[in-house]
Amino acid sequence: MPDPLSYRPALSRMQPYTPGEQPAPGKTVKLNTNENPYPPNPDVVKAIQDAATGPLNRYPDPVATAFRRAAADALGLPGPEWILAGNGSDEILTILVRGFVGENQKLRLPYPSYILYRTLADIQGAAWEQVAFEDGWQLPAAFGDTPDDVRLVFLPNPNSPSGTVLSATEVERLAASMTCPLVVDEAYADFADGHCIELVKKHANILVTRTLSKSYGLAGVRFGYLVAQPQVISQLGKIKDSYNCDMLSIAAATAAMSSQAWLADVVARMNATRQRMSGRLAELGFDVTPSKANFVWCTHPCGQHQAMYEYLKKNQILVRYMQFPDWGDGLRISVGTDDQIDACLMILESYLKNV
Amino acid sequence: MPDPLSYRPALSRMQPYTPGEQPAPGKTVKLNTNENPYPPNPDVVKAIQDAATGPLNRYPDPVATAFRRAAADALGLPGPEWILAGNGSDEILTILVRGFVGENQKLRLPYPSYILYRTLADIQGAAWEQVAFEDGWQLPAAFGDTPDDVRLVFLPNPNSPSGTVLSATEVERLAASMTCPLVVDEAYADFADGHCIELVKKHANILVTRTLSKSYGLAGVRFGYLVAQPQVISQLGKIKDSYNCDMLSIAAATAAMSSQAWLADVVARMNATRQRMSGRLAELGFDVTPSKANFVWCTHPCGQHQAMYEYLKKNQILVRYMQFPDWGDGLRISVGTDDQIDACLMILESYLKNV
Repeated sequence: MPDPLSYRPALSRMQPYTPGEQPAPGKTVKLNTNENPYPPNPDVVKAIQDAATGPLNRYPDPVATAFRRAAADALGLPGPEWILAGNGSDEILTILVRGFVGENQKLRLPYPSYILYRTLADIQGAAWEQVAFEDGWQLPAAFGDTPDDVRLVFLPNPNSPSGTVLSATEVERLAASMTCPLVVDEAYADFADGHCIELVKKHANILVTRTLSKSYGLAGVRFGYLVAQPQVISQLGKIKDSYNCDMLSIAAATAAMSSQAWLADVVARMNATRQRMSGRLAELGFDVTPSKANFVWCTHPCGQHQAMYEYLKKNQILVRYMQFPDWGDGLRISVGTDDQIDACLMILESYLKNV
Repeated sequence: MPDPLSYRPALSRMQPYTPGEQPAPGKTVKLNTNENPYPPNPDVVKAIQDAATGPLNRYPDPVATAFRRAAADALGLPGPEWILAGNGSDEILTILVRGFVGENQKLRLPYPSYILYRTLADIQGAAWEQVAFEDGWQLPAAFGDTPDDVRLVFLPNPNSPSGTVLSATEVERLAASMTCPLVVDEAYADFADGHCIELVKKHANILVTRTLSKSYGLAGVRFGYLVAQPQVISQLGKIKDSYNCDMLSIAAATAAMSSQAWLADVVARMNATRQRMSGRLAELGFDVTPSKANFVWCTHPCGQHQAMYEYLKKNQILVRYMQFPDWGDGLRISVGTDDQIDACLMILESYLKNV
């Protein structure tokens, strides 16, 4: 008799994705998962509290119309039909893989970048292939040269862990040579100087994902979205759960999107901190990759990155130690408040005195 | 050159699932999607408002530990490792299909029942097969006789649209003969006299899903969960998005689960209304299926179900008209407040005067 609990083989084989450590709330300074160090917009808090006294016994709007209208306004899009709302951009990424990549087909991603894309391929029973960044974090033209079995390409832009950006012109050139959709994951785009949303209007195979977890400071609320041409939104909408976003998070995300001045202010503050921390890290001897995101990738000639991570952790500062096989390792440090960054730099300085 | 936007064939072929109508808030009496007519527990509202001033800029607990502890206590389970929390039980159902059913394999469901299961198979590129209920809403023994290509069986219990229940003994007997997992969808179990959670402790292939949308009156919050043996929870946890439940809904669901007295009270009130409406519908000449859920399935010898639905709708009362090919049609009426049900019955009475 067969095993009455036999999982899909793809699932039994795979390792789960491990997100960054989430210590219990307390004294730890969290600079490891690129959260916003500032509390959210008070308008957002008020919107949630108002929604809490609303008709929670009723199903929410299945397509988050209020949010999509506010987002279309903020982004200069023709209308809400260009937007698909999701339970975090994680859900949007899952929907994209399920929409385009069948079992035994492939998705492509740059290397090093966000390894969750690989997990999404694994869950789907699909394969993945990585194309390495060249010096200066540029992508070879071959990244856009997609054989028939590559059904989807992911490009985080700004990239993680590097914080580097490909220009819209470069993205357009890559997408033009692809025979499948290109997903530009713009989780960190609010911290950069440009973005690719205008390209979506011109090219049906350019799809842009965004999240409210980083720049809007709402990681706890789980809200993200896809920007794509209306026929793409309509097809991919078949995959989502009927009521994928709850009333509270729709209210929060709508209020957040309607306060672009708050966003500009917090981004300016964080980018100033990023510039200051990059300079100080360089003074400490780090090789600092110029970042357009809310984190900084740095390596030190001493090569003791893992030991530095552990020393910081012992001192209640959590950064991300990352090791990429056949490539190298380093530290990815999220932009915190100025005080948090000063504390981190002080401990790094004290570590380096003993090297 | 291939189409740069080619969806998985399964997706292009499929029709999307259409949930029940959600009219704009206003005067409509909604008796069509089995929501709870009463406002949620004030403790839940307070928990959300408190959480709104918490660290929303941080990621939530990826495995909703606080909720799982409260749920394990409420359900008499050994511990939180028997529970997987989801963004509505819809997400749990999606995870189950992705966990067990590969492209070109099959899932099985009774007929008539919840057609969303078919949509989930379609999205996955899998097939589905239906086994018809026998007279008296019993299932033939053949329902448990699963060939190798059937990888998952769904059993809503209580069933929709009938509101009928198979006993735990009957469920155990069916599961014992299956060579795949049996998902007992207990969305409506709080309105019934029994449930199958005890069976999970004995049988690894019995998996129970629950939702907070119905009895707890929290459809707007999107929270559901799976009860299964710990090794099943652990495997299926690989499929969910890393942070699938947000801080606000975790706070709400934890507070809800911690107030079992509130639940008992609202269920008693709704079941009393169900009994009263069932009796009155019978007096109006309807054939009423005895229900153990928060809705009633009824047919009338006049057969004018669709016309009745439309007449009710014209009078701002929305019920669910359901038509099952090769089986028949009827009305599924959710248990509302006593006033709402009185209004519905009055309009049905007025319709029937002219038949």
